[in-house]
Amino acid sequence: MAKRIRLAKRVVAESDRLAAELAGRFSAAGVFVANLMGSPGSGKTSLLEETARRMAGPCRMAVIEGDLATDRDAQRILRAGIPCRQINTGGGCHLSARQVLDALEAFNLADLDVLFIENVGNLVCPAEFDLGERRRVVLASTPEGDDKPLKYPVAFHKADCVVLNKIDLLAATDFSREAFRQYVRGVAPAVPVLELSCRTGEGLDAWLDWVRAESRAARRGEPRPAK
Amino acid sequence: MAKRIRLAKRVVAESDRLAAELAGRFSAAGVFVANLMGSPGSGKTSLLEETARRMAGPCRMAVIEGDLATDRDAQRILRAGIPCRQINTGGGCHLSARQVLDALEAFNLADLDVLFIENVGNLVCPAEFDLGERRRVVLASTPEGDDKPLKYPVAFHKADCVVLNKIDLLAATDFSREAFRQYVRGVAPAVPVLELSCRTGEGLDAWLDWVRAESRAARRGEPRPAK
Repeated sequence: MAKRIRLAKRVVAESDRLAAELAGRFSAAGVFVANLMGSPGSGKTSLLEETARRMAGPCRMAVIEGDLATDRDAQRILRAGIPCRQINTGGGCHLSARQVLDALEAFNLADLDVLFIENVGNLVCPAEFDLGERRRVVLASTPEGDDKPLKYPVAFHKADCVVLNKIDLLAATDFSREAFRQYVRGVAPAVPVLELSCRTGEGLDAWLDWVRAESRAARRGEPRPAK
Repeated sequence: MAKRIRLAKRVVAESDRLAAELAGRFSAAGVFVANLMGSPGSGKTSLLEETARRMAGPCRMAVIEGDLATDRDAQRILRAGIPCRQINTGGGCHLSARQVLDALEAFNLADLDVLFIENVGNLVCPAEFDLGERRRVVLASTPEGDDKPLKYPVAFHKADCVVLNKIDLLAATDFSREAFRQYVRGVAPAVPVLELSCRTGEGLDAWLDWVRAESRAARRGEPRPAK
């Protein structure tokens, strides 16, 4: 057991070292990097598609896509006109700093304002791994139920921004926005909660404002907030 | 690295030994045990609530609930009149055979016909761990999108039954039942796909028939199918 713990500590230390290297590169280039997490089907790729359609041009975006298998999400992002690199993890349940470092070879950071890293669809494991990102965005969606912040507290506790997607389905579910906000506050008192629908476009402006403000902060060279 | 692999192999061997012990106990008692997996919010607890309400009485059911935190799901099952034991994994991303073995102390297997194990909401990690179950049930729900069998192939490949929940939301999403069935067949050609809605009750009869047939097979002492 002691051996296993020593080995695990060595793996974690290496992961943290690579994450710090990534954070340094992102910061030096003035690129805003967000790590997107959420359940399968919460709408991470849809949010990036809508963000690309509404922001690209003046804002130079790129995406790293993480999935166990297929390049379906990368194809969706490319169709939205944005450079994208797909990482397939095989059975892996989260992206690693090493995988992100390797994927960066596809981009010139100096040409970018914003880089989104879409993690594997999983509300548990990705929360444990720093990818050098400036901000963590956790997506939830109304059909999943309003109690997810209580049941997956680690992901929500570490979030810098919570996006509640699929508010167009509110009437068809028994989701309570008030309960959801209360549960989020219980694990992350100060985190913003942005309600939106990628399908109807409702609420997307506030999300785009948040991304633009973070992008300006990164461009000014503000260090990433302590985790 | 070699050390890490040796240690990992030892952990897997211990897990498989405990799973075989569980399978032996379930089989000797003639209890049908199903391991339920699915994304957060796919409707695992709702399916068990509806199953309890419609089957309990003639069928003696119990539930083991797995969650990172809270006993909310166990409370829901208890309110449906069914014995239930909650396992909290802390940050753990799946249930282990050891945790199930410990939870069994809450029940007398001789008094049961069916035991459901609701795994942690996660479409990745639980698929890697045998809990001694007779059958694996993988839940998907229409708002998650129809491509989940492609993107989470391990879970669907190992499934003995796929439940597609929330078909009452079909009209509000762009989910294609035909595409979903085709993608399931691609990774698990012979697995049954049961479409239902825990909210409206549509399709639940076919699910209950499946559970009853499996329960009869377990009662007759048929060995669990090879994985």
